[in-house]
Amino acid sequence: MKSLPELLEEVKVRVVPTEREKEKVLTKVEKVRLRLERAFSKLPYPVEVLLQGSVAKDTWLKGEMDVDIFVRFSPELDKEEIASMTLSTVKKLFGERRCVERYAEHPFVTVRLLEMNVDVVPCYRSEKGEWKSATDRTPYHTDFVLSKLSKEEKNEARLIKRFAKGIGVYGAEIKVGGFSGLLCELMAHHFGSFLKMAEAMARLRLPLLIDPMKYYEGREDEARDAFGTGFIVVDPIDRKRNVAAAVTQTKLNEMVVASAAFLNGPSIRFFFPKVKDLSLGQLKRKILAEKRQLLAIQIPKIEAPPDILWGQLYSARDKVLTIMKNGDFDVMRIAAWTDEKRISLIVMELGTTILPHLKLKTGPPVTSPHTLRYLDLYAGGGAAAGPWIQEDRLFILARRRYTEAATYLKKAIKEYVKAGAIPSLVAKELESGAKILVGGEIPASLKGKDAGAFLSGFIDGRPEWMRSVWAESVRKKRT
Amino acid sequence: MKSLPELLEEVKVRVVPTEREKEKVLTKVEKVRLRLERAFSKLPYPVEVLLQGSVAKDTWLKGEMDVDIFVRFSPELDKEEIASMTLSTVKKLFGERRCVERYAEHPFVTVRLLEMNVDVVPCYRSEKGEWKSATDRTPYHTDFVLSKLSKEEKNEARLIKRFAKGIGVYGAEIKVGGFSGLLCELMAHHFGSFLKMAEAMARLRLPLLIDPMKYYEGREDEARDAFGTGFIVVDPIDRKRNVAAAVTQTKLNEMVVASAAFLNGPSIRFFFPKVKDLSLGQLKRKILAEKRQLLAIQIPKIEAPPDILWGQLYSARDKVLTIMKNGDFDVMRIAAWTDEKRISLIVMELGTTILPHLKLKTGPPVTSPHTLRYLDLYAGGGAAAGPWIQEDRLFILARRRYTEAATYLKKAIKEYVKAGAIPSLVAKELESGAKILVGGEIPASLKGKDAGAFLSGFIDGRPEWMRSVWAESVRKKRT
Repeated sequence: MKSLPELLEEVKVRVVPTEREKEKVLTKVEKVRLRLERAFSKLPYPVEVLLQGSVAKDTWLKGEMDVDIFVRFSPELDKEEIASMTLSTVKKLFGERRCVERYAEHPFVTVRLLEMNVDVVPCYRSEKGEWKSATDRTPYHTDFVLSKLSKEEKNEARLIKRFAKGIGVYGAEIKVGGFSGLLCELMAHHFGSFLKMAEAMARLRLPLLIDPMKYYEGREDEARDAFGTGFIVVDPIDRKRNVAAAVTQTKLNEMVVASAAFLNGPSIRFFFPKVKDLSLGQLKRKILAEKRQLLAIQIPKIEAPPDILWGQLYSARDKVLTIMKNGDFDVMRIAAWTDEKRISLIVMELGTTILPHLKLKTGPPVTSPHTLRYLDLYAGGGAAAGPWIQEDRLFILARRRYTEAATYLKKAIKEYVKAGAIPSLVAKELESGAKILVGGEIPASLKGKDAGAFLSGFIDGRPEWMRSVWAESVRKKRT
Repeated sequence: MKSLPELLEEVKVRVVPTEREKEKVLTKVEKVRLRLERAFSKLPYPVEVLLQGSVAKDTWLKGEMDVDIFVRFSPELDKEEIASMTLSTVKKLFGERRCVERYAEHPFVTVRLLEMNVDVVPCYRSEKGEWKSATDRTPYHTDFVLSKLSKEEKNEARLIKRFAKGIGVYGAEIKVGGFSGLLCELMAHHFGSFLKMAEAMARLRLPLLIDPMKYYEGREDEARDAFGTGFIVVDPIDRKRNVAAAVTQTKLNEMVVASAAFLNGPSIRFFFPKVKDLSLGQLKRKILAEKRQLLAIQIPKIEAPPDILWGQLYSARDKVLTIMKNGDFDVMRIAAWTDEKRISLIVMELGTTILPHLKLKTGPPVTSPHTLRYLDLYAGGGAAAGPWIQEDRLFILARRRYTEAATYLKKAIKEYVKAGAIPSLVAKELESGAKILVGGEIPASLKGKDAGAFLSGFIDGRPEWMRSVWAESVRKKRT
């Protein structure tokens, strides 16, 4: 077995580009930047075209490079103007065919070039603290990382990023709710190394306050007043912002558990998980053999930028959870997923998809003014059994209107959509093309590797890293 | 429709004996008392043979007379002595064949004579406050009722008793946990009439303190310190005793609800309920048609005096409830019953008698020291699904060991009996002859009208008075 330092060295070899590789990347990227700079210089406004993101910060993962080029406008222009100028200039330069219009806080363009994807993002030349758009901070962040992080820390940031990716907690987008690239870099700077970060996470007790610029030194209470008592990483260029704000409790705790598990039994699989997903056919057989009580809503194509789509999908998932609970269904777990193109899924596993016919219904306290009306309603035999008096209350056994989860969900969704209680984009599709599927119908109705991988992961229940690490350790024990 | 006064008059005619009837009863009873007095006078101790109970107090219900004759001994004798002397003297006088030995706090004898049953009860000639046995208070109670209750109040006490009997809350014995005869008499004295009692009960708010001798006047706090904050009726001949102590919350509230219902729609059926029980065959068909999720334990003959038997049976019922809850079974209702001879039953209605195969199991909090051990246990695939991390905890789906209520209960009862956690008499029978029955098996395995009536009542769920009153009101509406 490899020692821990050997293991980390092996990961480093896989994530830190060599000097030669770095040079090659930077040369190529600079060419693209120059082409963009030339194109944007024709606009009637002074703009800067800046290399940003992990390539600029020297923290990108070997072979996983996404290039960010920011176009910085005067704060006097309005958001729509800078967005449309960016889109039209980029499209004109590279041809519409290569460009995908995308959206975070405001629109940006992804250009698909031969060897890389380049995001071209408009922003403002804002003074610190006078942010006009969320992307205005990025150039300052780049400066911070470049000037404050040592070369070693940048490479440790690469390890942290790879670990976060491996355990599925990388990315601040709504889909993930995890650790952004900047957050990984700030953690590398704060803890000094991946290993120290993992040790700190493994024994994490909230609140945790990381404050690179010591804005709140000696005034930690002030930070807690501003950010609450969770996981707080004060933005080094904006004392009012928590860089870790997007990290959900679940993702933070996945980091905690994975860190503890890694330290207890280091494995390359935390960084590079390998899982064998079941095929849709295998999934169907497994669901039927184990009588898994699954229920799914399959929703057709929803047209929206990813953050909007995932946001609405997660919110719909939470509504569905409420709906099912209101119908007395015991939802043991629920998840939502979309390929961002053709299909969205909300899948849940219930205690049972078929409820008993009768349920205990608590009536009024005996001393309530409603007692006589309650008797008038039920004492003549209107209930399946009762009313009876037990201690200080009346009770009946009532007949359920809906015993089948699928039937109930169909009806309840209609009512919720009608009442406007489900996010609009999902609601639209629910009304028209959505299908409700039970058990073995779910894999039978899915297509494609991605959907299969999602369902396989859901049925297994474990995060990928856990499946991968433990499969590895079982394999090792056997040999 | 009859007016309320007409209705109460009708009840009075049925429960108050005429003067002629009273005379006849008293003459007959006095003859029995004299025979007993003569027999007991042969003992080497001075004893008094006293007529007690409702006949002595002029509060018995026409045609439902049970005669109590107390034999009062010197407090110097011990309990076993006075019990055995009473038993042997009575048996010698009336012949063993007519005598049934019974047991409350100490043994007494029921003698079956031609026109009446006579309980012959030994007690002590105790001074007030120096009670040697619980029955010593009875002669003082009789004196109190005779001297303090007007003739009218005695007849109102008869109405209250009949109402309490009609709605199933009459009797302080463990089987019922309801209103004793003395309690009904004291309520008649306190409220002045059945109607005023019903009005007070219908709007009952606890604590309620009734204190005929005004022991606690101006010091009600003291009474609450002594008796708690429930339904308190201070014994007029013993300020330390709550005559209503045996009344359970459920029985008190049945009185509350029945009183409110009576005032809202007076009916003779509250006093004299008539119900049509389903036959065992009908019950079986109903259970199957409605998929009622019933489970029963049928226990053979248990040899014990009624209060002991019912006490152990109720305690076993509560244990069974705990057992079922521990096995995740949703017990919607549970009841116990015995014919006091051949059979005892614990019957329950479940949400479902068959649980799903999988259950959600909450694991340790992620920051717990047990997290790594938990992963070692389950992360290799030991659970049906998971572990996964949700918010601050680990979870798995586990396979249930027992999904069938009957199988589970059989196993659990064995363990509980082994651990000595079930009352001894019931445990003995559970170990040997008890049967666990599901659904339609229950009526199929029962015999006799009483068992059928109990099961019919359980399946219906309503108290008898409710079934009777509402059947009546439905009948009236139809005609």
